[in-house]
Order: sequence, then structure tokens, then C-alpha cells
Amino acid sequence: MREVAIIGIGQTPVAESWEKSLREIAGEALFATLADAGRHTADGLFVGNMLSGLLIRQENLGALIADWVGMREAEAFKVEAACGSGAAAFRVALMAVASGEMDCAIALGVEKMTETRGSETTAALATAADADYEAAMGVSFVALNALIMQRYLHEYGWKHTDFAPFSINAHANAVHNPFARLREPISEQDYTQARMVADPINLLDASPIGDGAAAAVLVPVESLTGNGRARQWITIAGSASATDSLAVHDRSDPLWLAAAEKSARKAYSQAGVEPNDIDVFELHDAFSIMAALSLEACGFAERGQGPRLGLESKITPNGSIPIATRGGLKARGHPVGATGMYQIVEVVQQLRGAAGLTQVEDARIGMAQNIGGSGATILTHILKLAL
Amino acid sequence: MREVAIIGIGQTPVAESWEKSLREIAGEALFATLADAGRHTADGLFVGNMLSGLLIRQENLGALIADWVGMREAEAFKVEAACGSGAAAFRVALMAVASGEMDCAIALGVEKMTETRGSETTAALATAADADYEAAMGVSFVALNALIMQRYLHEYGWKHTDFAPFSINAHANAVHNPFARLREPISEQDYTQARMVADPINLLDASPIGDGAAAAVLVPVESLTGNGRARQWITIAGSASATDSLAVHDRSDPLWLAAAEKSARKAYSQAGVEPNDIDVFELHDAFSIMAALSLEACGFAERGQGPRLGLESKITPNGSIPIATRGGLKARGHPVGATGMYQIVEVVQQLRGAAGLTQVEDARIGMAQNIGGSGATILTHILKLAL
Repeated sequence: MREVAIIGIGQTPVAESWEKSLREIAGEALFATLADAGRHTADGLFVGNMLSGLLIRQENLGALIADWVGMREAEAFKVEAACGSGAAAFRVALMAVASGEMDCAIALGVEKMTETRGSETTAALATAADADYEAAMGVSFVALNALIMQRYLHEYGWKHTDFAPFSINAHANAVHNPFARLREPISEQDYTQARMVADPINLLDASPIGDGAAAAVLVPVESLTGNGRARQWITIAGSASATDSLAVHDRSDPLWLAAAEKSARKAYSQAGVEPNDIDVFELHDAFSIMAALSLEACGFAERGQGPRLGLESKITPNGSIPIATRGGLKARGHPVGATGMYQIVEVVQQLRGAAGLTQVEDARIGMAQNIGGSGATILTHILKLAL
Repeated sequence: MREVAIIGIGQTPVAESWEKSLREIAGEALFATLADAGRHTADGLFVGNMLSGLLIRQENLGALIADWVGMREAEAFKVEAACGSGAAAFRVALMAVASGEMDCAIALGVEKMTETRGSETTAALATAADADYEAAMGVSFVALNALIMQRYLHEYGWKHTDFAPFSINAHANAVHNPFARLREPISEQDYTQARMVADPINLLDASPIGDGAAAAVLVPVESLTGNGRARQWITIAGSASATDSLAVHDRSDPLWLAAAEKSARKAYSQAGVEPNDIDVFELHDAFSIMAALSLEACGFAERGQGPRLGLESKITPNGSIPIATRGGLKARGHPVGATGMYQIVEVVQQLRGAAGLTQVEDARIGMAQNIGGSGATILTHILKLAL
């Protein structure tokens, strides 16, 4: 198996981009990515996307986008794992290069979701849950997360306000990220007074949807060495995923992200690191409760103690485990099928020392975790700076 | 890169299965496949599917199906390339095993499409075409193929009846396949008198949709050798795909499947074979015109001469290039995202000598070609019998 490096990244601002079609947004991110990599094309394109069929009635995105950006003839497929689609496309691109089937592959996440009415988008997002046993009962995605958070508060004795630091940190960091959707800081008072969505989840616990695309170029490390190139690169040191039951009610413990634990442990082992070694962690804070559960499952906090990391200021860019350093899903925004690739792009920015005012000092090992469904599909990637 | 073998196959009958849900159909095929392979689980599951979001409002099929069949925790994603989704999932499963990321992967194609009204299904299938420049103009998928066939008749001087052998051969073979949807032979008169769908495509030029699932288990060849196992296995000797413009009007020659030619040439080269060496060819006869175009692009007929192979009886099981030996899309049926995996299963049946009355004598090298969109995404696989 060949070791794989990331040699280029690119993204579009997460926004309501009514003036641009999905292929235009994808193209913008791809051209930026190819320019950053110093390449003109690639052997393959793996497109992470969840909702194009339902929201813009377009499938076959692989061929659509390859054609649009002048990569006609290249291999191109869509990879879907609900909100984990971006990281799933990245993992498949890694396999394509590691196997030798391709010498250069692009992983792209793209989503176009602001043109439809809110009710339609909410119904489309519910297809990430179990259609027969959850969605058919009328439960939406935010409602599922509200049930989980309610139970968490009950079980471990936290108050809703104890989750404020997750949202405050995300918004504070997004202020400095030109690609973020919500670039305004929020206070604890803003958080506690925000409009309720599904008790106990209020507007500032939840991430905003958006249109956006982010991408990375993957090549074998062997193609970078021995030719006098001095430039730094980023290796994919750990890549793993796992599934859990799709329906939350089927889990023995709905407050434990078993697939996060399993994929993180595997990624740690592959990379030869421990949680302590992770300098920056872009996690899947679609809802503030998910930030807590992810930190616990990945070994950064004891079970039921995730909120403590926020209250003790350990999650800020100069804390011991910085998260959402570019705004996270909460404030950078959550264009669902693209999110996993935004996370990869942001970790690469940190490892390159290109994260501006929210730069984590001496970041050399970064982790990204992307979740599809309420914990049903979880992918964990560990990236390392190589010289 | 590790050489990869297929050690198990399974399928469900293509049918209107109103009494079974998508996960039940998928489970039926998976259990048959695992039993055939003598395994209980796998490291990963790649699900080829096109329409679950649009037709049954269920995404995240990877986690859904892994959970349903008792493979909770395994990696699982959906791979989509319109009607080429099945072969795309197979190609990704190959990369997963070849790269060493997995020691056992399952590729599954599944589609559930007979519960919705015909008009809804037709609209959903149109998402395989260009939503902005084709579907938005009201052109359906059969209409696109009708334009291509009309042009082909004009350009090369064939009559509609010259395509009859493709449909007659497919139906004759399906009679002997218990998994086929249409198990009735048809005559030339049936063909010429069939009801018109979109001139010149009539009902017997077109393949029927259906519900169905088919799957295969992939492992590295190195895991099969050196331990005294005597059983035959099938290797994946060639695997390639390519894209063309999504919109048919963007092609310099709409009568040439450039992506079929490119992917077939690559697969021939990988497998070290020529068209003459192919003993059986499961091609993508969604419409009879596609059978002709595929035969030409893959080097079995001169440009514009595809129908000649049918008229000269070369496409039957005892002809020089047997196609649709188990019924093809035309008569086995076309559950779109599953079709590519049915083709793989059928080629394996032929190489195992398990194709019953439509067995191709001494079949040792087989090819499958799966198409997404009107030629936009084309995957070609060559399988070989190893001892």
C-alpha cells in the first residue's frame, strides 16, 4: 500500500449562493484546489454529496462536474454517506491512490441546498435517518438530536448553558475565516436567549446549512520524494470509518458514539499517536451535543464529561485540544455533503501554518471527524505534517 | 497493488417486490452472497444505488444495510454513477481490497423502484441526464436514446427491424434464468409490432425497470493461495472507467461511446487480452441501440456495423461474442443501481460453468460493461477464471 499525501486544497465560501449552480460552485473549489496543487487535471474525481437528487434533481454528479471543469474522460463517481459524504469521498480517493489504480485523485465535497424551501430541506435531511422507523414517525433530524441532548442533560446532570462554550468558540473562530457563513461573535447571553428549535436545542446549538464546496488533491508520497522538492506536504497518517445502527433507538447506549470510538482508535493506531498527540481536531458539531459526544468517544474527555473541556477553555485555538478552529459546522456552516472536505481543508490549513488569527501554534498532527446520520456512519482522518 | 478475486456471488429475482423493502431485498442478496463465499461478514460494504433518495426517501444506505444484515461496525458507503452505480461500487470495492485498506469487501447493487408511479420514476431517471440542459427541456431518458437511435438509422442506413436480434436473443436467454424479470421468448413479429414508446424505440427495444439486488465478495488473491485450497476462483483482471460529457449534445459524435472505448481499451491492456479473447460480454442493453454502440466501441464491430453481429447470429450463447446471456437489461431487467452487479454475477456464473442452458462453452474470460447516463459514465470489467 502506498502512502498518500495531500498536495492541494481549495474551498468556496459557505453561503446562500443563489446566483451559482452546483456545478459552478464545484468548479470554483476545484480550480482553486488544482491551482494550489500546481496541477491541471487528475485521474479521478470522487464527489461527496448527499442531496443533489432530492434538492436539485441531478444525479450522476461525477460525470457532470468532471465535464464542467475540463476533466472529461477522467473517472468520476459520487460517494454518499449522508452528512459524512465528504469524508467518505476522501476515504475512497485515498484507496484509489493507495491501491495504485490512480496516481492523482481529487476528493470534492459539494452541496447546494438553499434554493428550496426550509420544510423541503428538513424533509430531505431526514433521509439520513431511518425512513421506515424514524422519519416515517415524523421525527426530523434536529428532533433526534434534541432527544439525545435531553437524555444527556438528564443522565449526567449538566445544564443547557454548560454547552455555551462550544458555540461561543466556534463563532469566535469563524470571525477570522473568510470562508465561514456566520462571521459574528456571540456571547453567553446570546446563546441562552436564542430562539428554541427543538427543546433543548436552540438556534445557537444548531449549525446553519449552506451552499459550498471544498476539495483536496491526493498523490502517492513516492511521487514527491527523491526529486529535490523541498516543499512541505501533508500525509494521511490515519483513515478509518465505522457504522452504528441507523436508528438511534436501536443502540444500547444512545449517548455513546460507538462508530466514532471505533474509527478514532483505528486511526490512532495507524498513525501511531494517542489523543494527547492531536494538535487540532475538526469535529462534527452539527449540534453542540455532538461536539461533546465526539470529544468523549475519541478519548479527550471521560464519558459524560465533554462539556467540561469547553468550560475549562481547553477547546480554543490555544487550548489543549482546539476544535472548530475555523468556525466548525456551527459557524463556518454545514453544506452537508461538503462538510467533511471543509474539515480536511481546515486541518491542512492548520498544519501549513496558514490559519491566520486562529492558528494553533506548532500544529503538526491534526484530526478530522465527519458524521453521517445521528452517529450511524463516522469517519476519522489523521493528517501529519511531513518535511 | 494486490490482485483481487471474487469468491462469492448472490442475487434476488428482478421483480415487482411490493412486499419487500429495499433493506430486505438487499439483505436477501447479501446473505446469499456471504453463504456462497463461506463468510459471515466483511470489512466493508459498498452499495451501488441511484434512486433511493428520490423514490423511497432513504439515504445513508451503507449504514442502513450494514446494520440490517448484522454487519454493524463495518465500513459502508453508497456509490452513485446513475445506472452505472453497481459497477462503480464494484470498482471502489476493488480499490479497497487492492489498497490493503480492507481484506474483504462486498460490492452490492440494489434498487427499489416499482412502488412509485411511472411518471415519478421517469422523472427520477431523468436525473441521470443534465438537469439544466436536458431534463429541464422536458426530455426523458428514453427520448434521449430515441434521438440517438434515430440518428444512427439515418447515418448508417439500418432499418428498425435490424435491431430485432438483440431483443430476441436477450429474451431467449432470460427464459432459462430464474432471476430474470421477463422470461418469455419473443419473435421478430412481436418485436416489429410492439407498441411505440419514443420513435423509433418501441417497447421491445427498451428494458423494464424492477426491484432487485446483486452482490459479490472480494478478497485478495494472496489470501487464497498457498493454503491448499483447490477451489477455482475468479480474478478481476481488468477494471477501468471513464466519463464523457453528461449532455449528449456536447459530444462531437453522439453515435460513439467514447467512454466505453477508453475504459475497454484500458481493461484489455490490464488483462493482457484483445476483443477476440472475450468469451462472454454482458453489456448495457438498456435500449437496443446501446447494445450496438457498446459492441462497436469495444472493438467487436466496425463503426456503424453493430447490428450486423445480431443479424449474423454472433451474439447468441454459441456465437463468437455472446451477449445478454442471462437476459441482459432487456429481459433480466434493469433495477438501475443494481444492474452493474447483476452483470458481474452473471459473468461469474458463466466462468464457473453455472449458466445452465445458456452456458457459453469453455468460458474463461468474461467482460461486463455498465453505463451511467446516455454514455456519460462507463465502467468496464474483465474477469478471468483462475485455477
